[in-house]
Amino acid sequence: MRLMVKNTGYQALTVDSLPTRLGGISDIAVHIGADPSHWTVKEVGDGNLNLVFIVSGDVGTLIVKQALPYVRLVGESWPLPLYRAYYEYHALTRQAARAPGSVPAIRYFDAAQALIAMEFLEPHIILRRKLIVGERVEGLAKFLGQFCAQTAFRGSELSLASATKKADVALFAGNVEIPAITEALVFTDPYYDAEMNNHTDGLSGLVAQLRSDVELKVKVQQMLQRFASNTETLLHGDLHSGSIMSTATESRVIDPEFVQYGPMGFDIGMLCANFFMAYFSQPAHRADDLADYQSWILTVVEETCEHFDTEFKRLWNTERTGMLYPAALFEDQSHDSALACEVVLRNIWKDAWAFCGIEMHRRCLSLAHNADFEDIDDVATRASLEARNLMMAAELIHHADELKNANSVCDLARVHNSKDYL
Amino acid sequence: MRLMVKNTGYQALTVDSLPTRLGGISDIAVHIGADPSHWTVKEVGDGNLNLVFIVSGDVGTLIVKQALPYVRLVGESWPLPLYRAYYEYHALTRQAARAPGSVPAIRYFDAAQALIAMEFLEPHIILRRKLIVGERVEGLAKFLGQFCAQTAFRGSELSLASATKKADVALFAGNVEIPAITEALVFTDPYYDAEMNNHTDGLSGLVAQLRSDVELKVKVQQMLQRFASNTETLLHGDLHSGSIMSTATESRVIDPEFVQYGPMGFDIGMLCANFFMAYFSQPAHRADDLADYQSWILTVVEETCEHFDTEFKRLWNTERTGMLYPAALFEDQSHDSALACEVVLRNIWKDAWAFCGIEMHRRCLSLAHNADFEDIDDVATRASLEARNLMMAAELIHHADELKNANSVCDLARVHNSKDYL
Repeated sequence: MRLMVKNTGYQALTVDSLPTRLGGISDIAVHIGADPSHWTVKEVGDGNLNLVFIVSGDVGTLIVKQALPYVRLVGESWPLPLYRAYYEYHALTRQAARAPGSVPAIRYFDAAQALIAMEFLEPHIILRRKLIVGERVEGLAKFLGQFCAQTAFRGSELSLASATKKADVALFAGNVEIPAITEALVFTDPYYDAEMNNHTDGLSGLVAQLRSDVELKVKVQQMLQRFASNTETLLHGDLHSGSIMSTATESRVIDPEFVQYGPMGFDIGMLCANFFMAYFSQPAHRADDLADYQSWILTVVEETCEHFDTEFKRLWNTERTGMLYPAALFEDQSHDSALACEVVLRNIWKDAWAFCGIEMHRRCLSLAHNADFEDIDDVATRASLEARNLMMAAELIHHADELKNANSVCDLARVHNSKDYL
Repeated sequence: MRLMVKNTGYQALTVDSLPTRLGGISDIAVHIGADPSHWTVKEVGDGNLNLVFIVSGDVGTLIVKQALPYVRLVGESWPLPLYRAYYEYHALTRQAARAPGSVPAIRYFDAAQALIAMEFLEPHIILRRKLIVGERVEGLAKFLGQFCAQTAFRGSELSLASATKKADVALFAGNVEIPAITEALVFTDPYYDAEMNNHTDGLSGLVAQLRSDVELKVKVQQMLQRFASNTETLLHGDLHSGSIMSTATESRVIDPEFVQYGPMGFDIGMLCANFFMAYFSQPAHRADDLADYQSWILTVVEETCEHFDTEFKRLWNTERTGMLYPAALFEDQSHDSALACEVVLRNIWKDAWAFCGIEMHRRCLSLAHNADFEDIDDVATRASLEARNLMMAAELIHHADELKNANSVCDLARVHNSKDYL
């Protein structure tokens, strides 16, 4: 499959060349307008990896996303294979089937050009921006809990035929370089003096403390082994608040180019981490409504996790068609399988809270920080809020096995939110 | 890769056609003799799946193993893809590299004919036969412990570069039907009234008891999920005493056609299970030397596990070149990584003892029983010895997390060996 996209015809699009190059493609033109000379093109890629264009015409608007052969954030010195667009395309089709309506509709895909044309979401904006400016999104918890539960369950052998799933594991195992980014930046770099690391002034003492915690590092490496050697389900792989677009009442998940097979608790754990970072950063972004808005964020976490459990149990009882925990062993012998479902969920949450803590660490210690903290200009304020985040994360990693439920985890956040670590 | 072997030229060899068909292949003729009219051919396949020929000539002898397009034990009603020979070939080359001298040398491979010509082992016989007749094998524990540790460690991302391992995961993920046999026969069939099951008369009460143990079934399905959704290392996949050939002083591992990626504890757990079944069956095979020989078997188990630990730790300290538990996080920060190694080993053994119990169950309850018990003609004796095996196995599955080491497990075997369950 790699060979397929290793052609020599690849050329990065520009604002000027885009109408000429894509104007003749009917699957695209039908959604924008037949006359490309009427198209307007805006480059809006603000992410780390890709070109993103908004293309509008007489009929409507599409997003055109094209992979670049290197990491945009770093430059041509860090090459990155174009075939990631191929995996993103396959991830989007699977997510659309498993969680209908949750991702942008695909209009056109060109593997050689590493190019996907897809539905333009409007007036959606990146959820992380909403969380920074203090906006609420109705139905967010239900949408996210169900998205995570549906993709986790329906991508696993609780649901899929084993032959189908194994063929898919083989397909996605070709995506090597992208998981390698996660493996290094998320799981390893934060815990030693890696070249591309950076952290806020004032945190060096805490960072040294974390790096001297051998048990912590062992736990993180256990989770790396689980992340890299586990094919329970097809993950989004990068489900943070920058991969979610929302209006006041509607949300979608975007950008699954970090797709890979992995543990069912990974996406929901990473997602919760990004809510906790939003939570801890709020004192720098809010004034009067601080307590209210922080409380809303924790409610979203609690309810997302509740919706996850509810939806997972519903699917367990109605769609358990795979080889795992078959009815032949339970219902057909008049044995309730509820205990089995509880055990599966318990293991998902153990993983999730550990992944959650690791994501909270790496976003303050490794290469790719997030705007929740980065937008805080006052360094001392930023350091003190990041410190709360780092300390709670360490506790999550150490005690992931013992946490009762999302409410206990949110209680932990409340405790750390009142601490002064610097 | 599947397509490669899906040709139409496949023809099963016969004793008569073999010299004509293989006589012109120089890689084969050089080891047997240039004149195929001098070759003698004997069909000796006693396994469940394949044709196996011993071919001798003026120069020497080779084994020629050819896959059949169906399960030999059951017949043409159970088709099985020929491409398994392709995976067996790749398994043998990797085992030869990772545990040098442990497997027969390959002389020739033909994917289209699903045929492997390999070193003839003499005077080796199948270890299971030796255990039934009461023979000892010098150095067995060291050989097996090191084989399991070397293949587990060197096939994992403790050792391999991630890109190398992921490409290999993709390759072996094409092997769908063979793992499906293990998934059904080992993990699921024993615990419900599956069509191909059989068990010894007198055991029905115990079987009903096991099938009514919901917690047990949940634990077994958790292990199935771990077996099917885990790519820690490249497994042999069927490492029982029928897959080991020994003289009085030397051993080799054969028949890795059940090769797949899976948890590092799988092979060693299945191996120990087969020693425990040999142990429990002994009262029907021995007289005067019963206690001595049973004690020898348990010593082999204890020492195999000790050699596993010793070799794994040696590799940890000398060959940890993969991305997991990197020196950058431990040694380079003057932190001992011994704790990390202990944690990895503890997790391997948790898995191993659960897989061990499951293998002990399925060999008495599902389709493919083993000769240790099957060779016992007296049904009442067989039932009472199998009962001990079944009850110990249940305890292993329930308490796999709590068992201290192989010595504790052997103590458990001694306790069950004195019980009368029927």
